Amino acid sequence: METKKLGKQSVKLVNPPSIAATYSIVGPKEGEGPLGKYFDAILDDEYWGESTWEKAETKMVKECIGNCIAKVQLSNSDIDYLLAGDLINQCTPSCFGSRETSIPFFGLFGACSTFTESLSLGSMLIDGGYATNVVCATSSHFCSAEKQFRFPLELGNQRPPSAQWTVMGTGSAMLTKNGDGPYITCLTTGKIVDMGIKDANNMGAAMAPAAVDTMYMHFKDTGRSSNYYDLILTGDLGYIGKEITTELMETRGYNIKNNYNDCGVLIFDKEKQDTHSGGSGCGCCASTFCGYIFNQMQAKKLKRVLLIATGALMSPTTAQQKESICGIAHAVSIESNL
Amino acid sequence: METKKLGKQSVKLVNPPSIAATYSIVGPKEGEGPLGKYFDAILDDEYWGESTWEKAETKMVKECIGNCIAKVQLSNSDIDYLLAGDLINQCTPSCFGSRETSIPFFGLFGACSTFTESLSLGSMLIDGGYATNVVCATSSHFCSAEKQFRFPLELGNQRPPSAQWTVMGTGSAMLTKNGDGPYITCLTTGKIVDMGIKDANNMGAAMAPAAVDTMYMHFKDTGRSSNYYDLILTGDLGYIGKEITTELMETRGYNIKNNYNDCGVLIFDKEKQDTHSGGSGCGCCASTFCGYIFNQMQAKKLKRVLLIATGALMSPTTAQQKESICGIAHAVSIESNL
Repeated sequence: METKKLGKQSVKLVNPPSIAATYSIVGPKEGEGPLGKYFDAILDDEYWGESTWEKAETKMVKECIGNCIAKVQLSNSDIDYLLAGDLINQCTPSCFGSRETSIPFFGLFGACSTFTESLSLGSMLIDGGYATNVVCATSSHFCSAEKQFRFPLELGNQRPPSAQWTVMGTGSAMLTKNGDGPYITCLTTGKIVDMGIKDANNMGAAMAPAAVDTMYMHFKDTGRSSNYYDLILTGDLGYIGKEITTELMETRGYNIKNNYNDCGVLIFDKEKQDTHSGGSGCGCCASTFCGYIFNQMQAKKLKRVLLIATGALMSPTTAQQKESICGIAHAVSIESNL
Repeated sequence: METKKLGKQSVKLVNPPSIAATYSIVGPKEGEGPLGKYFDAILDDEYWGESTWEKAETKMVKECIGNCIAKVQLSNSDIDYLLAGDLINQCTPSCFGSRETSIPFFGLFGACSTFTESLSLGSMLIDGGYATNVVCATSSHFCSAEKQFRFPLELGNQRPPSAQWTVMGTGSAMLTKNGDGPYITCLTTGKIVDMGIKDANNMGAAMAPAAVDTMYMHFKDTGRSSNYYDLILTGDLGYIGKEITTELMETRGYNIKNNYNDCGVLIFDKEKQDTHSGGSGCGCCASTFCGYIFNQMQAKKLKRVLLIATGALMSPTTAQQKESICGIAHAVSIESNL
């Protein structure tokens, strides 16, 4: 068997799965942002006809998965596995959004790293010979997340400049065994990194060290230079986390200034949309990738992308119990050509 | 490549990974139960020297993983992946219990199905050639779970007879590529099944249809009869769920009366321990397997076990929003000989 393991944390996919299709659904604010034209659907409000935000997010997951499968003219019975996760307690939107699919289901929790966690596991399931088609889905919703993690929205709390804006968005990617790209070629799975940050309004700083750790290990394990990629894209570090990441990578000998960006920086307009340090949430990376980046790869404007979703492993309970915020990040190398 | 897919929901592991070691830690009540002598460690109280139940559960996960790895004289750097999950919001015990390991980490959420979810993904990662050693860990804690899902313990609420007792327990299993068994040979991954049950004090009834669905699909996909196994063991259906499962399997043409049991039935003494319908929680299946069942397999008293952890995908929020309880179950076939 050809060696699949690369270094300490990475693997090479010997029969790289293709991303056959993606689907993205976002909220009104995301639709008004710079990436608006790339999303498959933009909702008019935060409820989408449902009575609660959690039900709206559940509907987003359900519709996003269904439309992703429909895009490639497959039906649910053609899908071997569905991998999904989100930020809400007990992953409600993913579980309830998947309940009518009848697709074998693996629920994931990696906070905002979940999208690349799902792509990682999904592509190993295909490359390993266990599946032909796998759907990976991730979501977040500003209102359900803020209510759960911070304050009731009705309070109208002021947000500090380091805070990020949880993206209302879902992204689904259909991975397939026999496609013509873009291909998932390499994975670097992150370990948990905790640098002692406790400020839940500065998630970018809490997650940046994990992003740096995974990015560095990816280059080390694969022997690739940072210039190998047209774009290195973290999930939701925002402006502050992006700056920290750029600096920390420089201290490790990597200049990523010219080809590095962050989904939380891309998805909102800093001047006009008042989102402070940028976007965050599981849906930030998922909708930016499934909307904008996948489009750019199909148009061959981007050929090699290193996508690194970044997660802050914390809860209101851990914050109340004075715990620090653990970070984690998983990198997925996506390439137009083999 | 040899075909790995079996039927609709199952896969055959071509190079079956071994379970090289397990470790289990339980609380005092579980230690006093019928399986007491099989657990690696029994704690004296619900805190284990920590200031909160969540921190105690976190310590249980941390120690359980560490001791499992130590049992086979390996160190953390020998472990390719750690897969873990639990019931607490944002999987706090798993994430915080894993943060010092420096092992590439995949967080999972499958409610009480998480233990076999982790064994499923872990064994595909090894069989597929991506890993040599994988640790799978799952936990629950009576106090942290009751507090989060039902009522403050201080209220002293009376529990209806259909209620189950969340197990305070952790189990870790070390999967390895080159072992001498017990082997993980087949997997059947469950789909979400929702039969409309809304009573959070009758989880057994909510999860039983999912257990039946997965068990039935396992027999259908693999062509095995129910008699193939010395023991078919569900995760935490308790007395009520076990009875429903037995009856529903009979209507589908399978008599499992003589070789079927449930971890929630085994772990407590019905007469003496006042746990009503039996044990539940992620840790119920994990500690029963990692303690009792693994011991019986090593002693060759059990040679073929079908382990089916069962999960109820619900949260206090979904209950308040009048949602039903979705069930899911994943089956793992564990055999002493190939």
